[in-house]
Amino acid sequence: MNQETGGAVVFIGKKPFMNYVTGVVMQFNSGAKKVCVKARGKYISRAVDVVEVVRNRFLPNLKLEKVDINSEEFEGQEGKKVRVSTIEITISK
Amino acid sequence: MNQETGGAVVFIGKKPFMNYVTGVVMQFNSGAKKVCVKARGKYISRAVDVVEVVRNRFLPNLKLEKVDINSEEFEGQEGKKVRVSTIEITISK
Repeated sequence: MNQETGGAVVFIGKKPFMNYVTGVVMQFNSGAKKVCVKARGKYISRAVDVVEVVRNRFLPNLKLEKVDINSEEFEGQEGKKVRVSTIEITISK
Repeated sequence: MNQETGGAVVFIGKKPFMNYVTGVVMQFNSGAKKVCVKARGKYISRAVDVVEVVRNRFLPNLKLEKVDINSEEFEGQEGKKVRVSTIEITISK
Protein backbone atom coordinates (compact mmCIF):
# COMPACT_ATOMS: atom_id res chain seq x y z
CA MET A 1 0.00 0.00 0.00
CA ASN A 2 2.78 2.39 0.88
CA GLN A 3 4.27 1.86 -2.55
CA GLU A 4 1.09 3.19 -4.12
CA THR A 5 0.73 6.21 -1.89
CA GLY A 6 4.36 7.17 -1.41
CA GLY A 7 3.77 7.10 2.34
CA ALA A 8 6.15 6.05 5.06
CA VAL A 9 5.96 2.86 7.11
CA VAL A 10 6.77 2.52 10.80
CA PHE A 11 7.08 -1.01 12.22
CA ILE A 12 6.33 -1.31 15.92
CA GLY A 13 8.55 -3.58 18.01
CA LYS A 14 10.27 -3.67 21.38
CA LYS A 15 12.19 -0.40 21.34
CA PRO A 16 11.18 2.28 23.86
CA PHE A 17 7.63 3.46 23.24
CA MET A 18 8.46 7.11 22.55
CA ASN A 19 10.91 6.13 19.80
CA TYR A 20 7.95 5.09 17.70
CA VAL A 21 5.87 8.14 18.56
CA THR A 22 8.78 10.40 17.60
CA GLY A 23 9.35 8.34 14.47
CA VAL A 24 5.78 8.86 13.25
CA VAL A 25 5.77 12.58 14.12
CA MET A 26 9.09 13.07 12.32
CA GLN A 27 7.77 11.37 9.18
CA PHE A 28 4.96 13.91 9.00
CA ASN A 29 7.24 16.81 9.85
CA SER A 30 9.61 15.86 7.07
CA GLY A 31 6.87 15.90 4.44
CA ALA A 32 5.05 12.55 4.49
CA LYS A 33 1.34 12.87 3.77
CA LYS A 34 0.56 9.37 4.98
CA VAL A 35 2.17 7.07 7.50
CA CYS A 36 1.35 3.38 7.86
CA VAL A 37 1.97 1.96 11.34
CA LYS A 38 2.38 -1.83 11.25
CA ALA A 39 2.72 -4.46 13.96
CA ARG A 40 2.37 -8.18 14.55
CA GLY A 41 1.25 -10.31 17.50
CA LYS A 42 1.59 -8.77 20.93
CA TYR A 43 2.86 -5.49 19.49
CA ILE A 44 -0.57 -4.75 18.02
CA SER A 45 -1.76 -3.05 21.23
CA ARG A 46 1.38 -0.96 21.15
CA ALA A 47 0.79 0.13 17.55
CA VAL A 48 -2.68 1.39 18.53
CA ASP A 49 -1.16 3.22 21.52
CA VAL A 50 1.48 4.86 19.32
CA VAL A 51 -1.15 6.14 16.87
CA GLU A 52 -3.42 7.35 19.67
CA VAL A 53 -0.60 9.22 21.44
CA VAL A 54 0.46 10.84 18.15
CA ARG A 55 -3.13 11.90 17.45
CA ASN A 56 -3.93 13.07 20.97
CA ARG A 57 -0.72 14.78 22.02
CA PHE A 58 1.26 15.76 18.95
CA LEU A 59 -0.74 16.04 15.73
CA PRO A 60 -4.41 16.47 16.61
CA ASN A 61 -5.50 17.10 13.01
CA LEU A 62 -4.40 13.74 11.65
CA LYS A 63 -7.04 11.67 9.92
CA LEU A 64 -7.39 7.99 10.68
CA GLU A 65 -7.62 6.68 7.11
CA LYS A 66 -7.87 2.96 7.60
CA VAL A 67 -7.25 0.17 10.06
CA ASP A 68 -6.71 -3.26 8.60
CA ILE A 69 -6.20 -6.53 10.44
CA ASN A 70 -4.97 -9.76 8.98
CA SER A 71 -3.07 -13.00 9.59
CA GLU A 72 0.33 -14.19 8.45
CA GLU A 73 1.34 -17.81 8.44
CA PHE A 74 4.87 -19.04 8.64
CA GLU A 75 6.70 -22.25 9.50
CA GLY A 76 7.69 -22.34 13.13
CA GLN A 77 9.89 -24.81 14.95
CA GLU A 78 9.52 -28.45 13.84
CA GLY A 79 7.87 -27.31 10.63
CA LYS A 80 4.62 -26.46 12.38
CA LYS A 81 2.49 -23.76 10.82
CA VAL A 82 2.21 -20.74 13.05
CA ARG A 83 -0.39 -18.02 12.55
CA VAL A 84 0.20 -14.49 13.75
CA SER A 85 -2.20 -11.54 13.63
CA THR A 86 -1.16 -8.27 12.02
CA ILE A 87 -2.44 -4.70 12.00
CA GLU A 88 -1.87 -1.82 9.59
CA ILE A 89 -3.03 1.60 10.68
CA THR A 90 -2.88 4.36 8.07
CA ILE A 91 -2.98 7.95 9.22
CA SER A 92 -2.78 11.03 7.03
CA LYS A 93 -2.38 14.80 7.28
CA MET B 1 -23.09 1.36 17.05
CA ASN B 2 -24.50 -1.98 18.08
CA GLN B 3 -27.69 -0.24 19.11
CA GLU B 4 -28.17 0.91 15.52
CA THR B 5 -27.41 -2.40 13.91
CA GLY B 6 -28.94 -4.78 16.42
CA GLY B 7 -25.63 -6.63 16.52
CA ALA B 8 -24.00 -8.37 19.45
CA VAL B 9 -20.99 -7.12 21.38
CA VAL B 10 -18.18 -9.27 22.78
CA PHE B 11 -15.75 -7.61 25.21
CA ILE B 12 -12.28 -9.16 25.31
CA GLY B 13 -10.61 -9.55 28.71
CA LYS B 14 -8.56 -12.03 30.67
CA LYS B 15 -10.71 -15.16 30.41
CA PRO B 16 -9.27 -18.13 28.47
CA PHE B 17 -8.75 -17.23 24.81
CA MET B 18 -11.10 -19.83 23.35
CA ASN B 19 -13.99 -18.56 25.49
CA TYR B 20 -14.06 -15.45 23.33
CA VAL B 21 -13.68 -17.35 20.06
CA THR B 22 -16.57 -19.59 21.03
CA GLY B 23 -18.55 -16.57 22.18
CA VAL B 24 -18.26 -14.87 18.79
CA VAL B 25 -19.03 -18.05 16.83
CA MET B 26 -22.08 -18.71 19.00
CA GLN B 27 -23.43 -15.20 18.41
CA PHE B 28 -23.39 -15.83 14.67
CA ASN B 29 -24.80 -19.34 15.04
CA SER B 30 -27.71 -18.01 17.08
CA GLY B 31 -28.71 -15.49 14.44
CA ALA B 32 -26.58 -12.36 14.83
CA LYS B 33 -25.72 -10.72 11.50
CA LYS B 34 -23.03 -8.53 13.02
CA VAL B 35 -20.73 -8.90 15.98
CA CYS B 36 -18.63 -6.10 17.43
CA VAL B 37 -15.49 -7.25 19.26
CA LYS B 38 -14.22 -4.60 21.69
CA ALA B 39 -11.12 -4.33 23.84
CA ARG B 40 -9.01 -1.83 25.72
CA GLY B 41 -5.29 -1.48 26.45
CA LYS B 42 -3.26 -4.65 26.38
CA TYR B 43 -6.27 -6.72 25.37
CA ILE B 44 -6.32 -5.08 21.93
CA SER B 45 -3.86 -7.65 20.50
CA ARG B 46 -6.09 -10.37 21.88
CA ALA B 47 -9.19 -8.92 20.24
CA VAL B 48 -7.44 -9.02 16.86
CA ASP B 49 -6.36 -12.62 17.53
CA VAL B 50 -9.92 -13.64 18.42
CA VAL B 51 -11.31 -12.15 15.21
CA GLU B 52 -8.56 -13.70 13.09
CA VAL B 53 -9.04 -17.17 14.62
CA VAL B 54 -12.81 -16.93 14.08
CA ARG B 55 -12.29 -15.89 10.45
CA ASN B 56 -9.55 -18.39 9.68
CA ARG B 57 -10.71 -21.49 11.49
CA PHE B 58 -14.44 -21.27 12.10
CA LEU B 59 -16.35 -18.89 9.83
CA PRO B 60 -14.25 -18.24 6.72
CA ASN B 61 -16.98 -16.25 4.95
CA LEU B 62 -17.23 -13.47 7.51
CA LYS B 63 -16.71 -9.96 6.27
CA LEU B 64 -14.48 -7.56 8.15
CA GLU B 65 -16.77 -4.53 8.16
CA LYS B 66 -14.80 -1.99 10.11
CA VAL B 67 -11.94 -1.58 12.53
CA ASP B 68 -11.99 1.52 14.67
CA ILE B 69 -9.40 2.67 17.19
CA ASN B 70 -9.85 5.36 19.78
CA SER B 71 -8.86 6.62 23.23
CA GLU B 72 -10.75 6.77 26.50
CA GLU B 73 -9.76 9.05 29.34
CA PHE B 74 -10.58 8.45 32.96
CA GLU B 75 -9.34 9.59 36.36
CA GLY B 76 -6.77 7.24 37.77
CA GLN B 77 -5.21 7.14 41.22
CA GLU B 78 -4.50 10.56 42.78
CA GLY B 79 -6.90 12.20 40.31
CA LYS B 80 -4.46 11.86 37.45
CA LYS B 81 -5.91 11.61 33.96
CA VAL B 82 -5.18 8.26 32.38
CA ARG B 83 -5.58 7.58 28.67
CA VAL B 84 -6.25 4.08 27.37
CA SER B 85 -6.51 2.96 23.75
CA THR B 86 -9.54 1.05 22.52
CA ILE B 87 -10.44 -1.02 19.48
CA GLU B 88 -13.79 -2.00 17.98
CA ILE B 89 -13.78 -4.64 15.27
CA THR B 90 -17.07 -5.23 13.47
CA ILE B 91 -17.50 -8.48 11.55
CA SER B 92 -20.61 -9.56 9.66
CA LYS B 93 -22.07 -12.58 7.91
